[in-house]
Amino acid sequence: MSKWEENVRKVVPYTPGEQPKDQNVIKLNTNENPYPPSPFVMMKVNEMKDDILRKYPDPTADMLIESLADYYKIDKSSVFAGVGSDDVLGMIFMTFFKGELPILFPDVTYSFYPVWADLMDIKYETVPLNDKFEINIEDYIKPNGGIVIANPNAPTGILLEKDKIIKLLDNNKDSIVVIDEAYIDFSPEGSSCLDLISKYDNLIVVRTFSKSRNLAGLRLGYAMADPKIIKYLNDVKFSYNSYTLNTFTILAGTAAISDDAYFRKCNEKIIATRERFSEKIKELGFTVLPSDTNFVFASHKEKAASDIFQYLKNKGIFVRYFNLPGIDNYLRISIGLDEEMDKLLEELNTFLTQD
Amino acid sequence: MSKWEENVRKVVPYTPGEQPKDQNVIKLNTNENPYPPSPFVMMKVNEMKDDILRKYPDPTADMLIESLADYYKIDKSSVFAGVGSDDVLGMIFMTFFKGELPILFPDVTYSFYPVWADLMDIKYETVPLNDKFEINIEDYIKPNGGIVIANPNAPTGILLEKDKIIKLLDNNKDSIVVIDEAYIDFSPEGSSCLDLISKYDNLIVVRTFSKSRNLAGLRLGYAMADPKIIKYLNDVKFSYNSYTLNTFTILAGTAAISDDAYFRKCNEKIIATRERFSEKIKELGFTVLPSDTNFVFASHKEKAASDIFQYLKNKGIFVRYFNLPGIDNYLRISIGLDEEMDKLLEELNTFLTQD
Repeated sequence: MSKWEENVRKVVPYTPGEQPKDQNVIKLNTNENPYPPSPFVMMKVNEMKDDILRKYPDPTADMLIESLADYYKIDKSSVFAGVGSDDVLGMIFMTFFKGELPILFPDVTYSFYPVWADLMDIKYETVPLNDKFEINIEDYIKPNGGIVIANPNAPTGILLEKDKIIKLLDNNKDSIVVIDEAYIDFSPEGSSCLDLISKYDNLIVVRTFSKSRNLAGLRLGYAMADPKIIKYLNDVKFSYNSYTLNTFTILAGTAAISDDAYFRKCNEKIIATRERFSEKIKELGFTVLPSDTNFVFASHKEKAASDIFQYLKNKGIFVRYFNLPGIDNYLRISIGLDEEMDKLLEELNTFLTQD
Repeated sequence: MSKWEENVRKVVPYTPGEQPKDQNVIKLNTNENPYPPSPFVMMKVNEMKDDILRKYPDPTADMLIESLADYYKIDKSSVFAGVGSDDVLGMIFMTFFKGELPILFPDVTYSFYPVWADLMDIKYETVPLNDKFEINIEDYIKPNGGIVIANPNAPTGILLEKDKIIKLLDNNKDSIVVIDEAYIDFSPEGSSCLDLISKYDNLIVVRTFSKSRNLAGLRLGYAMADPKIIKYLNDVKFSYNSYTLNTFTILAGTAAISDDAYFRKCNEKIIATRERFSEKIKELGFTVLPSDTNFVFASHKEKAASDIFQYLKNKGIFVRYFNLPGIDNYLRISIGLDEEMDKLLEELNTFLTQD
């Protein structure tokens, strides 16, 4: 080993879901939207003059920030954007979690949270879900260095009622509370905590364009919070990279936000497919957790999840399997097109009845 | 002050060059390329099917990494890419500078280096340039936690001879040496340290698409080094954000690399303009440091740089002025189109002869 290796930050990286290069697979493993982005997106990109690319993008991504602020009827000083919600969450961890007390998040949740904490030497404590895979908010009301809750949670898909989050906020004023709403657009209206940012100056709501905006390929996420929070975040962002969002991202993101009708139509279709699919796999002997997202988390009464996962993969259908304690008999299945879900149901039926 | 603010990472962010929204200004302040990107870039982007954007990009950006590896005739395990060379350098600081000894870089150089060090609590020591604004390599041969040298240096534009870097590498095996070659494509052939990465496993060469590839708007940079270094970098990258490069960036970057003739032609034109412009402003009474970049660093014998800066700005010509000790009577002027430089010369002439 060379001497310089002694000073290397050694980490165990997050493993993203597989991105198979074969275009013919049915890809239900990374919660992408089955519908293409709004037609406005490519229209705006194609209108772009190539000369604009020789110049740096607007470091404050003003056009995009303004369109988000207008859309959500908040001030633009309350909006921060980054390279996917991963970049936004990473920046939040870096900016706000410098305290001595551990930060808290569920033991079963987005598996990037502990990775960021490890990367940045942040102490953390995981809080167990209850036996129905639900978050018990009372468990978080104790001294802490920050709280991170995905709502709805992943990979469970379960939504935490807003009054419980209000209770948490009322009892937790001294540390930052992050509500990661990556999937909230697939939940009933009124579930979001966004309207609470004007009341609680320690609340950060995080969103992404990867799921409900059909733009996982764009890498665009954002946070909304009290302007004081956004200022601290921007200071850290401008201390790391002045221009995180490229010209394409700013244009395409703004275009996507402008097409609200398309956004609502796609989400409605996905919710309808989710409900139909959930009923159908229950009939095949699956237990399905109640989902308010664009995926379902399901376990079969008799067959091992790992075996189903492997069988489906061989058939060209990718779902997500986490070999982790407590959830290693579950599959996370993204909601695709109706015909993709039908094909999946067909293969499941074949597998389950084959012997 | 709320209690949660006690645990905030408080930093003094880097200030990027102004990005005026008025499209009619002559913009010579951020070292952008005056020529648009290769026509292949928009062609490839326009060929893109919108369905691809609903999916996550390839987290390893394989197509781009392979095209860079092929172009430079190195193995793809020696290439790392990020959101501009800022992201790449930020990741390098985060990954390799965990030691007790201070890292070293010049006192006059890219002003992001101390910002990253501060953000990540890295000890650093700045090493003064000599009175000709040159790096004296002997000053770096001492115990250190890492060395970062921009070559050619910015904002001076001065190239350090390769044999001096070899001398440094021969005498510095125990820490990482970063050579930031953002401007090397405007230097004489043979100036780059790239061929040394196979000999020195602690050397990292960093490059960007923002200058010589005409793509500042894309945010794409890369590092080339021993595969062991790239592995450590990727581990940290995958612990922060699995997908930093979006689908546009991967496509457009690959297309730009494929058009070598265009790349060479633009660079030759810029070098010719630089030489012509340097002679002309010398005639106007400027001292011009020898530049091997796409900018010149110049000081006038009689007029204060800050006054010239302000005068030009009022005339719609943006150059860069750093109000920093030792260089506060210099202007950094990016090389634009010939007609832009002529207009600048004309305004300078008017200003200098006005009283």
